[in-house]
Amino acid sequence: MAFEWPVRIYWEDTDAGGIVFYANYLKFFERARTEWLRSLGIGQQQLREQTGGIFVVTDARLRYLRPARLDDELIVTAQLQETGRASLTIVQQALLNNEQAPNQPRVLLSEGTIRIGWVDAASMRPARIPSTLLEQLS
Amino acid sequence: MAFEWPVRIYWEDTDAGGIVFYANYLKFFERARTEWLRSLGIGQQQLREQTGGIFVVTDARLRYLRPARLDDELIVTAQLQETGRASLTIVQQALLNNEQAPNQPRVLLSEGTIRIGWVDAASMRPARIPSTLLEQLS
Amino acid sequence: MAFEWPVRIYWEDTDAGGIVFYANYLKFFERARTEWLRSLGIGQQQLREQTGGIFVVTDARLRYLRPARLDDELIVTAQLQETGRASLTIVQQALLNNEQAPNQPRVLLSEGTIRIGWVDAASMRPARIPSTLLEQLS
Amino acid sequence: MAFEWPVRIYWEDTDAGGIVFYANYLKFFERARTEWLRSLGIGQQQLREQTGGIFVVTDARLRYLRPARLDDELIVTAQLQETGRASLTIVQQALLNNEQAPNQPRVLLSEGTIRIGWVDAASMRPARIPSTLLEQLS
Repeated sequence: MAFEWPVRIYWEDTDAGGIVFYANYLKFFERARTEWLRSLGIGQQQLREQTGGIFVVTDARLRYLRPARLDDELIVTAQLQETGRASLTIVQQALLNNEQAPNQPRVLLSEGTIRIGWVDAASMRPARIPSTLLEQLS
Repeated sequence: MAFEWPVRIYWEDTDAGGIVFYANYLKFFERARTEWLRSLGIGQQQLREQTGGIFVVTDARLRYLRPARLDDELIVTAQLQETGRASLTIVQQALLNNEQAPNQPRVLLSEGTIRIGWVDAASMRPARIPSTLLEQLS
Repeated sequence: MAFEWPVRIYWEDTDAGGIVFYANYLKFFERARTEWLRSLGIGQQQLREQTGGIFVVTDARLRYLRPARLDDELIVTAQLQETGRASLTIVQQALLNNEQAPNQPRVLLSEGTIRIGWVDAASMRPARIPSTLLEQLS
Repeated sequence: MAFEWPVRIYWEDTDAGGIVFYANYLKFFERARTEWLRSLGIGQQQLREQTGGIFVVTDARLRYLRPARLDDELIVTAQLQETGRASLTIVQQALLNNEQAPNQPRVLLSEGTIRIGWVDAASMRPARIPSTLLEQLS
């Protein structure tokens, strides 16, 4: 089952088209990934201090199906699809949370497949994901 | 040949990893698409007033190869790959402009394939791209 | 007593200095104002549809005392200081929520005094705040 | 005379009110300060590597007079008002560049007084501005 994280739409997220600016879904996806990691006991700031490594995004595929608007509440998911030695692939969705009809199926607004690689923070070179981290993820 | 647009990296673009935050390349790509359209005589605000339509991104594929940092100057390209009745596909790159060695080949930092669809701004429903707009694009 | 709203710091909020980028506190303050209004039953999107008006910021005074960092949780406050016919003044703070020591006094990171005016959304001209809105605020 | 820097308004800068989101003027002001420093031969990334210090904003006063919109071109100014041992005060304006009537006086959209302090980047503690830097500024 996918990890879920609520994201409220504020003025900062919208653009003059009256909808959420397309780049901001990458922010929402990143928030959900961070909270998914946190839910597994993984704090990225702490991890960096301990291991010198950070995750960076190497690939992203995004589909935008329907727009979100000011005051909407989204549910953003994160689900680990694949684990490699130096990278993870995470599938993510942004769904509209219809607060007036919580029992209705949620409408899919956008979805993404995000690959993140583990790099040494100083050199930005790819490195193996620490084994303790892989254990926490599995 | 691809349209080129310079983008300077400021504090706002970077994150605590010391590099440009991954979502911001979608901003840079959007700036270059806007300037490419402007170079063809197409102003989006004006177009909306005249036709009631706007472009929205429906798909994006992104690859992140190397990081950009504070004070870097990027060259961001936009090249029309495919024109449909209701959508355009644009290939874009962000390259590092080495100001100390302008004759060296530029290093590719990230690239994207972006599909944009034409929608009615009020309803957000897909519509045919106005023919005068298609003529300006070809 | 001031309205309080939690704000988590993500990668998107930080800059290459390793701290939260200064403009982002204005986003956090806006989120807290929006949630304060929502807590009083005031939805801005709905209000705009009903009255044609929106709030815009006309003045902001900001002091930055200490930096926030990745993974920090802030408590952002909003307190109505003054109500005029066409504007409101709101005092806001961003405090560090020390999750390890919840009984310690929270450290003040930044504070702002924000004046927002009521304008007609189409013309952007100042207008009187609707009386039903003023009643909800008092 | 004030330093001037052009800033074009893109979708990323606007919000659902159809105007530039208020926090983004702090980005524009920061860009103009960075370019003003660069025009004096001061590169912030280089300065940090050489001295270990960075500038951080400690105070900002902002007035918002008129909105900017998609496709507008702004001229953003930066003028040094006061130099202290550990801080600088800079006055900044965002003006609308009327491209159709370049000889008309430019309309003032917003203005700010920004105080920036010099800090050690590792400790974030205030420090004296390096004397070579002060010389470049005067």
